[in-house]
Amino acid sequence: MAESIAFLDDEFVPISEAKISILEPTFTKSDVVYDTLSSWQGHIFRLNEHLERFQNSYRAMQLNPPYPLEEIRRIVAECIERSGFEDTCVTLMATRGPFIDLADRDIRKCKNGLIAVCVPYYWVLGEDKQTNGVNMVITENQRVPAGAIDARVKNFNWMDLTRGLLEAYEKGGDSALLCTPDGFLSEGPGFNIWLAKDGKLFTPRGNLLEGMTRRSVFELAKEMGAMPIEKPLTPDDLRSADEAFTSTTAGGITPVTQVDGKTLGNGAPGILTTRLTDEYWRRREAGWHGTRVEDVLQERDVA
Amino acid sequence: MAESIAFLDDEFVPISEAKISILEPTFTKSDVVYDTLSSWQGHIFRLNEHLERFQNSYRAMQLNPPYPLEEIRRIVAECIERSGFEDTCVTLMATRGPFIDLADRDIRKCKNGLIAVCVPYYWVLGEDKQTNGVNMVITENQRVPAGAIDARVKNFNWMDLTRGLLEAYEKGGDSALLCTPDGFLSEGPGFNIWLAKDGKLFTPRGNLLEGMTRRSVFELAKEMGAMPIEKPLTPDDLRSADEAFTSTTAGGITPVTQVDGKTLGNGAPGILTTRLTDEYWRRREAGWHGTRVEDVLQERDVA
Repeated sequence: MAESIAFLDDEFVPISEAKISILEPTFTKSDVVYDTLSSWQGHIFRLNEHLERFQNSYRAMQLNPPYPLEEIRRIVAECIERSGFEDTCVTLMATRGPFIDLADRDIRKCKNGLIAVCVPYYWVLGEDKQTNGVNMVITENQRVPAGAIDARVKNFNWMDLTRGLLEAYEKGGDSALLCTPDGFLSEGPGFNIWLAKDGKLFTPRGNLLEGMTRRSVFELAKEMGAMPIEKPLTPDDLRSADEAFTSTTAGGITPVTQVDGKTLGNGAPGILTTRLTDEYWRRREAGWHGTRVEDVLQERDVA
Repeated sequence: MAESIAFLDDEFVPISEAKISILEPTFTKSDVVYDTLSSWQGHIFRLNEHLERFQNSYRAMQLNPPYPLEEIRRIVAECIERSGFEDTCVTLMATRGPFIDLADRDIRKCKNGLIAVCVPYYWVLGEDKQTNGVNMVITENQRVPAGAIDARVKNFNWMDLTRGLLEAYEKGGDSALLCTPDGFLSEGPGFNIWLAKDGKLFTPRGNLLEGMTRRSVFELAKEMGAMPIEKPLTPDDLRSADEAFTSTTAGGITPVTQVDGKTLGNGAPGILTTRLTDEYWRRREAGWHGTRVEDVLQERDVA
């Protein structure tokens, strides 16, 4: 039977055994960076690009995982293979690790670690939203500014996003879109945002994660002739858009059909959104930007 | 033999067994609030005030620990008693808990938890700094603003503090003091900051944790006739101070003797700093604001 698998402390373990100490600064200071990849029908999406971003993240926090990137690449593939799932999400974490001595809490002396975990592919906004669309609430709660926490260094410091989410739920929404302190759209808990207006496609720039699915939308949109533009966007830009959608590894492209409880466009997933979604999944099934799990494992066997 | 003890999943366990799943949003979204108390020679310091602050924190994040506050009070005392340590730090955590189903990642459906952990009393800035003093670096990296993350809701989203700390280490410092995005002093990783100038004592106000030791310094300073003032302070206020110190649960009052590598005052712990430190520890040993561990446990036995 397929089951979620983790790699930590140098071995593969069932998910029920994948735990970390409550005293590690990995947890008590959220001193960890991560990246989430997906595999679809045995193809890992944009594997090397995810690994490169993961490396940028751990270097930014002066973390040194105990494996070279080439070995981490193999660990990803082996987690997927061992899990037995056809479609997966794999999260890599570079951890600060435990203190050597509780009386000496110098994070420079911690033994940095690597964790990988493979779970069945999931839809961060809920699979039903793929057809119904999301009611997106633009929150009062702001996204952290880059001068404090750099969102491009993918991290678990999600308290601003979680506060935004709780605010969105209170307002009857499905998810939250946070703004920068100076009032421009940034991102939500786990996704980037896009909007279409008069046939043009826009996405924010600034202190936000430069998502791999965001990158994919740029490519697809260009090929479709809908020139995507990255620029500062306001809440009113979204409210007056013809259509909107989110992009994320765990869910691909998801339509936004309401903003702050008000219908966007005609209330159905937009034409461009639907074209992009269809094309995205058509290509994912064809192995677009994919590396076959078994190919990565064969590299290992050869080595 | 004395050993660190934790309470989680409804039982007391040795620290080696105190672990949480790597899939819990408690960890992957740092969706947890906490509070750290200390006991000294069997007296828990400001117990009810810590519990009240802890309650404010978990309510702010819509967390509902599975025990009433009165029971949490007993868990704190029992952790200390079971550990066997004379002087301790106890950390309480209100956790979001595990997802019920990995395919439905709605944090409202998580089973919230409570963790408590008792370790030997420690000095967050190093015990040697009590006499030598700290070289404090005022960092470029900013503290998160309250509009994104409210520092008064005590949380593990420490990436800004950790980035500040790494910056301070690179500059040869012992610890880091972060500023607000508009350039005023805020706090460091685990402590509040104080400075004295012309016989007056100052501490910042704004998006910072309102520490219990900070509160204690207010009381002591007033009694000593050094009227403490809470107001916005600039980096230059600190650099030109006569003396400075930090306040924190894990370490009490610690002198700052250098700022950005430059000697502060005469380079030794200041007169007011030393008086406050001596008085703080004299009172702690006398059970000031203290609740005896055994008294809390007797409440339990009576109930």
